[in-house]
Amino acid sequence: MRCATLLLFALCACTTTAPTDPLPSWQEGDSKRAILAFVEEATREGSERYVPPAERIATFDNDGTLWTEKPVYFQVAFALERVRELAPQHPEWKQTEPFRTVLGGDPKAIAKLSHEDFFRIVSITHAGMTEAQFRAIARSWLEEARHPRFDRPYPTLIYQPMLELLRLLEDRGFQVWICTGGTRGFVRALSEETYGIPPERVIGTTLRSEFREVDGAWALQRKPELVVPVNDKAGKPVHIGRVIGRRPVIAVGNSDGDIEMLQWARDPALRILVHHDDAKREYSYRKGTERALEVAARDDWIVVSMRRDFKSIYPAR
Amino acid sequence: MRCATLLLFALCACTTTAPTDPLPSWQEGDSKRAILAFVEEATREGSERYVPPAERIATFDNDGTLWTEKPVYFQVAFALERVRELAPQHPEWKQTEPFRTVLGGDPKAIAKLSHEDFFRIVSITHAGMTEAQFRAIARSWLEEARHPRFDRPYPTLIYQPMLELLRLLEDRGFQVWICTGGTRGFVRALSEETYGIPPERVIGTTLRSEFREVDGAWALQRKPELVVPVNDKAGKPVHIGRVIGRRPVIAVGNSDGDIEMLQWARDPALRILVHHDDAKREYSYRKGTERALEVAARDDWIVVSMRRDFKSIYPAR
Repeated sequence: MRCATLLLFALCACTTTAPTDPLPSWQEGDSKRAILAFVEEATREGSERYVPPAERIATFDNDGTLWTEKPVYFQVAFALERVRELAPQHPEWKQTEPFRTVLGGDPKAIAKLSHEDFFRIVSITHAGMTEAQFRAIARSWLEEARHPRFDRPYPTLIYQPMLELLRLLEDRGFQVWICTGGTRGFVRALSEETYGIPPERVIGTTLRSEFREVDGAWALQRKPELVVPVNDKAGKPVHIGRVIGRRPVIAVGNSDGDIEMLQWARDPALRILVHHDDAKREYSYRKGTERALEVAARDDWIVVSMRRDFKSIYPAR
Repeated sequence: MRCATLLLFALCACTTTAPTDPLPSWQEGDSKRAILAFVEEATREGSERYVPPAERIATFDNDGTLWTEKPVYFQVAFALERVRELAPQHPEWKQTEPFRTVLGGDPKAIAKLSHEDFFRIVSITHAGMTEAQFRAIARSWLEEARHPRFDRPYPTLIYQPMLELLRLLEDRGFQVWICTGGTRGFVRALSEETYGIPPERVIGTTLRSEFREVDGAWALQRKPELVVPVNDKAGKPVHIGRVIGRRPVIAVGNSDGDIEMLQWARDPALRILVHHDDAKREYSYRKGTERALEVAARDDWIVVSMRRDFKSIYPAR
């Protein structure tokens, strides 16, 4: 009898405990309240905003949304290092732009290269090997390279509040997808360990590849050409359509490249734009996000202020 | 006490019941034995062929593998009907091949059209509308049209033994994907209801699309152009690489178009080729499967004989 009483006592204690906060790194405020309300209503049967489990699709941009994107996209830092490593095999790069500028090493000149230049550098430095070989190279860079300002490995510069949001959504039956302007192969090299997101849930800009025998085994050999459209701007909904075949109900981004993805979410939707306004703990910038901020204000998207809404930025080390 | 005894009795009765056969529509024999052995070993921790849950990827061709593909691919039957429906809006088709042949209506001439002709017909008749509109049109055809020989709706001409295999694999933690030479949009119109496979698990030949406003709402508008490569032959591993980013451990097909997908499975793998040798209950043919049968014999793939291995072909009505 004593045992049973104890058990009953334990059960009561459990059920009366206050529910734990699923977003402890988010400050209390409008953003957190709106996110929790959406998730609660989307998963409560009978609510007006109920979303059946199969339709709980959430798409997240990567650079600037799940992790830091300054002073340059991390994949660009990787690609620039690849240029320097591969240069001895490509003497012609000394005379060919944009490689000449990269090899020149002047950060200001490099910063002025265009998006197209970077896509060209990426497609060329990430090709000429199999998918598996590329992933190994990217992984080893991700483990070893360190961010110039924070002096820690790049994959540790992910946002703790976003990690909590990913876990909350998964716990509530959402399929969480990454939809990145970076390349699929690069993000796949880190998505599982860094975010807990498996490779098949990563959509990104893609290098063409060819199925053939390499060293006596079947392989996908990467070619220095990108699948069009690249996975940016209107390319994001196009690739979401191809790969997922359903519209997201949650879409999260931070820049002008994410506008169309957020517009493609189907109502009632949760649309979040992460605003970088925290020069002290991370970076503060509007460049490349001006239009997105305008559309967000006009269409009533949730604008998350990193300064006000994030209690902490990066995971504790 | 009496109650407890009864309970104990009930528990014993349960545990000593023979396990139910997960593949009741498969004849006992080498094929069934090999499939069950592979699945058992792949999912038993500590076994030499153990596959961790995240890597349990199974890819299935559709036409001729999961459902009947004769007298023509079902999507071709649909596309031919679309040609006849759309002809009044396209007077130029009377003078343009391959439309002229289709409108001529001679089954022998139509049967002589090439793969490229069919892809052209598909891309043109499946475009000029949004993804959602296309899916609605395809669905209504799939509900209404009837197979010329079996006089039943096309989605009922799926193979009962393969349905059982899909369910067994899902029960054992495999991710089951369809990887079809047909178009993604067409197979997505039926995959969930017919096979229990959600749209995001369907890889196929894909029409290009454009993100834009249609009638005041955001939409993916289908264009009459195919993404290259089409999802056939060496295109299958290419698209598996793009979308899944892992190699399958189980690959199932029936024709020369599936050879590369089966080769791309990573060892130890289960590779199955469905052989159509049952003219009485379905069809008997080797055309278009000759090379696959050769490779299967050489590389020791499992060749499933529909006549000998399938107790029944279609689900009971």
